[in-house]
Amino acid sequence: MVSSHAYIRDGAEIYRNSFAIIRSEADLSRFSGQAEKVAVRIIHATGMVEIAPEIVMSPDFADAARNALLRGAPILCDAQMVAHGVTRKRLPADNDVICTLSDPSVPELAEEMGTTRSAAALELWRPKLEGAVVAIGNAPTALFRLLEMLEDGAPKPAAIIGVPVGFVGAAESKEALVEYGRVPSLIVTGRKGGSAIAAAAVNALASEVE
Amino acid sequence: MVSSHAYIRDGAEIYRNSFAIIRSEADLSRFSGQAEKVAVRIIHATGMVEIAPEIVMSPDFADAARNALLRGAPILCDAQMVAHGVTRKRLPADNDVICTLSDPSVPELAEEMGTTRSAAALELWRPKLEGAVVAIGNAPTALFRLLEMLEDGAPKPAAIIGVPVGFVGAAESKEALVEYGRVPSLIVTGRKGGSAIAAAAVNALASEVE
Repeated sequence: MVSSHAYIRDGAEIYRNSFAIIRSEADLSRFSGQAEKVAVRIIHATGMVEIAPEIVMSPDFADAARNALLRGAPILCDAQMVAHGVTRKRLPADNDVICTLSDPSVPELAEEMGTTRSAAALELWRPKLEGAVVAIGNAPTALFRLLEMLEDGAPKPAAIIGVPVGFVGAAESKEALVEYGRVPSLIVTGRKGGSAIAAAAVNALASEVE
Repeated sequence: MVSSHAYIRDGAEIYRNSFAIIRSEADLSRFSGQAEKVAVRIIHATGMVEIAPEIVMSPDFADAARNALLRGAPILCDAQMVAHGVTRKRLPADNDVICTLSDPSVPELAEEMGTTRSAAALELWRPKLEGAVVAIGNAPTALFRLLEMLEDGAPKPAAIIGVPVGFVGAAESKEALVEYGRVPSLIVTGRKGGSAIAAAAVNALASEVE
């Protein structure tokens, strides 16, 4: 049988059509400029216009994160999937994309600290934390741990993308980030989240407004 | 301020609690054995029990995919995020996890073929395709291209996880996979999908039934 599927094969056209569908279906009136673009990319990554009301950014988030990236801030990711979802060639200042989870010291550190490897891996972020863009897309324990470090006086990142996913601690960790309130932040409320959302937010912030 | 967040820090307990919540909230009566576990892991990866009705597996999918992994089948991924979501140490036969998207030949191939890089990258799968487990979690064009290759006589994989996400072609490509019907398959109907779902399915198939 000869191949006969009719579908759009032009990547740029697929993006344009996708974004047009999203903007026609989703209520994005709460967002403008770079923040609106972040919301569009999150919807694009999930296939869900219905996630729009669950996206919450502090008013200063998009500018703070964008400016940090332009200054060359590193992007600190809690999971390899987040790091590998960031489009390197789109980054404005050849920014470092860092995930410390696979560092050989992490399993022992987690044991000593009595916590998950995802949370323990943040100890290795300390020298890079000041002014960084944090992207947590997997582990609620990583977001809780980050808040503990900040409350204990660790250097402040420029912005926090806090979108861990799941049934145990995810919603609570994101509420705690909003309550902390001293770093510009993006969350998706409730259980939804994930590495694709975290990476999509970084990619939107790294691009010119489309 | 001293850190004071109360949350579960034991990774194994987080998993157990998550799976218990999922099984108490989601209607998984359509699934049993390894297939049920795949469904639970997909829900876990998305934070959405409401995705359960959208998960469709052919009756032979879970056994075919599981047996292929036990035989040492490679896992062919359309995106780096899928490949990096597969837990290597859990694979039963040290299976190769392959993503050809970053191969230097792919941009030129895509130009020649008049298609996306995601679709063109599948040309490099051909020598590995027979008996493989395919995991498409990003690009509808990759799934359409795979179906064209199969209809044109390419070797058959053992199973196809077909969960591309998005607004242009995703739903249609998954319908086309089910309609093709000659390889055991897993899809999520409609627009939802993504690399986390694809990786979660592989990870569920790679593990003993929990």
